[in-house]
Amino acid sequence: MPNKKKTKKSSHYAGVDLGGTSLLAVVTDQRGEVLGVEEERTLVEKGNPEPIIRQVASVVRRVCKKAKLKVADLEAVGIGAAGAVDPKTGIVHLAPNLGWTDVPLGHELEKALKVDVFIDNDVTVAMVGEHEQGAAKRAQSAIAIWVGTGIGGGLVLKGKLHRGGRGCAGEIGHTVMVFDGPLCGCGRRGCVEALASRTAMERDVRAAIEAGQQSVVTEIMEETGKTRMTSSVIEKALAANDAVVVEVLNKAQRILGSLVANLVNTLDPEVVVIGGGLAERLEDRFVGPIRETAYQEFIQKNACEKVRIVASKLGDRAGAVGAAFVAMSRS
Amino acid sequence: MPNKKKTKKSSHYAGVDLGGTSLLAVVTDQRGEVLGVEEERTLVEKGNPEPIIRQVASVVRRVCKKAKLKVADLEAVGIGAAGAVDPKTGIVHLAPNLGWTDVPLGHELEKALKVDVFIDNDVTVAMVGEHEQGAAKRAQSAIAIWVGTGIGGGLVLKGKLHRGGRGCAGEIGHTVMVFDGPLCGCGRRGCVEALASRTAMERDVRAAIEAGQQSVVTEIMEETGKTRMTSSVIEKALAANDAVVVEVLNKAQRILGSLVANLVNTLDPEVVVIGGGLAERLEDRFVGPIRETAYQEFIQKNACEKVRIVASKLGDRAGAVGAAFVAMSRS
Repeated sequence: MPNKKKTKKSSHYAGVDLGGTSLLAVVTDQRGEVLGVEEERTLVEKGNPEPIIRQVASVVRRVCKKAKLKVADLEAVGIGAAGAVDPKTGIVHLAPNLGWTDVPLGHELEKALKVDVFIDNDVTVAMVGEHEQGAAKRAQSAIAIWVGTGIGGGLVLKGKLHRGGRGCAGEIGHTVMVFDGPLCGCGRRGCVEALASRTAMERDVRAAIEAGQQSVVTEIMEETGKTRMTSSVIEKALAANDAVVVEVLNKAQRILGSLVANLVNTLDPEVVVIGGGLAERLEDRFVGPIRETAYQEFIQKNACEKVRIVASKLGDRAGAVGAAFVAMSRS
Repeated sequence: MPNKKKTKKSSHYAGVDLGGTSLLAVVTDQRGEVLGVEEERTLVEKGNPEPIIRQVASVVRRVCKKAKLKVADLEAVGIGAAGAVDPKTGIVHLAPNLGWTDVPLGHELEKALKVDVFIDNDVTVAMVGEHEQGAAKRAQSAIAIWVGTGIGGGLVLKGKLHRGGRGCAGEIGHTVMVFDGPLCGCGRRGCVEALASRTAMERDVRAAIEAGQQSVVTEIMEETGKTRMTSSVIEKALAANDAVVVEVLNKAQRILGSLVANLVNTLDPEVVVIGGGLAERLEDRFVGPIRETAYQEFIQKNACEKVRIVASKLGDRAGAVGAAFVAMSRS
């Protein structure tokens, strides 16, 4: 890591949230105020990271232009990438959504952009974003749970990001909650990711349809040209009061509520931030039932409401804004 | 809390581990060196806290005498009590093992001993003991899991005891691991305490015997005059290679291993300390299989062995020594 530079009166940072579906970039000033935003679909080409690396560099250039800056004006760039990343080396070790193994993303982007680049996990940077500017602002202890294709987590403890002894903290999605339950991508059984991620919900909805239950999901996916049961498909199915989706969502919410209770019983944080596509679209329709279950299952009931359980405040910008803050703190 | 006093060149502290079965007291100097130890059976009289309060005061006097000190020479006394305690007020809100609700233990002991008394949870003080002098010495992050009648926990994060926003952190025993599993004392189902505590193991052994399986446990309990399946009963049954006890213990160890993996996946601590009667008696025969399961279930396998999973080093003294350190830091 380079030595800490003298912060100029007005410093600028770019932050990028690099997901398997979309790529969102911001430019901020030294207070984290957003001066420009760019978003586009990620150009995933399995096994070949080059198109995405070029795309990230290009989106950083464009977002700078939008903010009337040059890339050379930036102090640093922060990237949040889904998967197992090493913040020290900037290598993305495993990103199933991007089809990547051991991609030296930080190094490649530094070559392309000629500016310092810092890589981190996507939910880690989202936690930083929510802690700096969002639902966890000023919290001494906070937990982020991002529910999407998988389930990721981030932690703030004693007012600071908690990375753990090996830098591996935050893998909240890999908490076993149903012993000998459904197989998870990680090889264990009954992880919360295999029970309550959007992927798990889709599996359960498909199984119900195959078992002969009526659902509008197939129709909605055909109409909207989606191949996956995205958050927008779920939202439309709920609007149509689809019994299968309602039941599958309720089950996932009950499991997520118990997960939150487990985490609160262990860590007793001030705030739990729930993020990802469903939290963004459904807001308290998604988070409300999770909160209700969690409060019922706190072991210590005194001042339950002091533990806030809320939807992400920054929404889909949490990761990119957090990545800019990570660039700020590490450069 | 009284203002921090000027530490004398040679200051002394007493620490007491107040459990439902036994009561262990130490006197230490300002470096935590143990100058005297006293242990006796706890005089539990359901609904009446007075005999125990008198007993704690008397054991503190005796352990001082052993260390050639007077109670008035002590800077402060620390007490670790099993159950829900409020460290700020010194009130034990709920201690099922002692049959207590809302007992102002700190206040009563200060009246009796005329010295500052600080109350804390029993596993919290054990965590402090292990962090100051035991298996978690110098760790930036550590988790203590105490397996006994129940399952309790304690956490050190960023080098310091983690109490959480409401002061309720550490209730690791109330982590749901079998959704809709056996009923726990707390009212939830499938908590690890209802699956892998000594109480849960006894329930499973009794059920196996009632279902007609052969076991030496009943015989051992009759011979030794025990009414509960204590750690020593389990040790004797293992020595006799009792199939029922072996199977029940293996199942509990598998669940505890998964619990440790869940905690490591979330927090990635440097060390996990397993304590309580079984860990003390069986040492690595108890902790070894827990460690093995946990390592298999880490989501990030790099440098697994950097996360040490070990038996308590201070054994049955962890709580009392930790309570003395708590008295030291809070007085």
